[in-house]
Amino acid sequence: MAKKKFDREQILSFLELIEAITLTESYQKTLEKLLEKTAEVLDVQQGCILLANPKNSEELVIECAFEQKARPKGHRINLTLTAHPNLYKAIFQNAVFVRKGGPEEDVEQVLYIRLQTEEFLGVMVFGAKGEKKEFNPDDILIAQAISHLAIASIQHGRIIEKNERLKTIISERMSLADEIRNPLMSAGGFAKRAFEKLNSGESGIDPKILEYLKRALKNYQRVENLLGELLKTK
Amino acid sequence: MAKKKFDREQILSFLELIEAITLTESYQKTLEKLLEKTAEVLDVQQGCILLANPKNSEELVIECAFEQKARPKGHRINLTLTAHPNLYKAIFQNAVFVRKGGPEEDVEQVLYIRLQTEEFLGVMVFGAKGEKKEFNPDDILIAQAISHLAIASIQHGRIIEKNERLKTIISERMSLADEIRNPLMSAGGFAKRAFEKLNSGESGIDPKILEYLKRALKNYQRVENLLGELLKTK
Repeated sequence: MAKKKFDREQILSFLELIEAITLTESYQKTLEKLLEKTAEVLDVQQGCILLANPKNSEELVIECAFEQKARPKGHRINLTLTAHPNLYKAIFQNAVFVRKGGPEEDVEQVLYIRLQTEEFLGVMVFGAKGEKKEFNPDDILIAQAISHLAIASIQHGRIIEKNERLKTIISERMSLADEIRNPLMSAGGFAKRAFEKLNSGESGIDPKILEYLKRALKNYQRVENLLGELLKTK
Repeated sequence: MAKKKFDREQILSFLELIEAITLTESYQKTLEKLLEKTAEVLDVQQGCILLANPKNSEELVIECAFEQKARPKGHRINLTLTAHPNLYKAIFQNAVFVRKGGPEEDVEQVLYIRLQTEEFLGVMVFGAKGEKKEFNPDDILIAQAISHLAIASIQHGRIIEKNERLKTIISERMSLADEIRNPLMSAGGFAKRAFEKLNSGESGIDPKILEYLKRALKNYQRVENLLGELLKTK
């Protein structure tokens, strides 16, 4: 089956794919670009990347879809695959599998490539139709290499998202800590005034002193509440 | 010059490289694996990845080196290229360049591939020696694709490092905030005792009251200092 040499055009467009995805700036754009370029490399006219919902790995959601004729680039739809148990089982059992005929009548073959690390990330799907009748062994080899690039892109995107979440945590905590400043200064100020009054040597207790201390204590309470908020587990 | 088809063995080992680098767990290991596999793909026996020092882009440091015979896998050395101005200039001017003869007598050709995004990241260097006399156009095309994978790995590694730094910031800030708890409770406790004493209706001023307030104020000061520390720009 295997040819002695790889088709030059196919490899060149595969090399182009690699360049294209390392130059895109956002996670979403990277996957769209990867899908679009894979369609070129495999010479197919439709494809999509389905990602497992991290909260429910039984559910697959279309992350991006590409169909040269019917859908505009980057068109997004949501779809669960749990309604198709046989397909779902096949994806879980096979790193790569090809089935005859697709969801549409004119699709000759459908190629599924599982995206798998320690966890199941999702699946890439491509349909052969029109002039493209089948996926040959070289298509499948290259599609598998592309699936590794997809995995790397997904992982990179997730790390970037995590990064953004950490930055948000820092900025939220910092603004909480900043809110502590005012009541703290206020509490300290009132306590200081109470002390000075008492320390001035006047006999008898000025009722203002009690008022100052009341306010100091009220502000303490606020500082404590804010600190409790700040220290809450992330 | 260009062949009609790509060499099958070369492409297969290139596809293997892609799989290998997406499966390694750490940044350093990824680059080492990439270098080792590139040596296979290009059929060379020595190579290294030099990264620009982020603090001084005029300085290049060997991140990892590979020489099948002389050096064990993953051997690390530090080396600056500023001592070689012509080479340095060539790297800055050319995305890819090949020069005849290498630093060692038996090296026939040296291939340099610049790692460049918006910033200059570094350079990959490979030496052809022994049976390998020269780098052909396909070697160079594939080497360029590999350089994009190297860039992606470097960027991914940096994001992971940044992530770790953010986590450290969060944990440091949290332990600082935690330190605020004690002096704050202490300040509040003393202010409360002073208030209760004053509020008990006894005439005359118990000297303890002043002592309490002094302590409360001292603790306020500590809380303020800690908060100042916490709010310092990162």
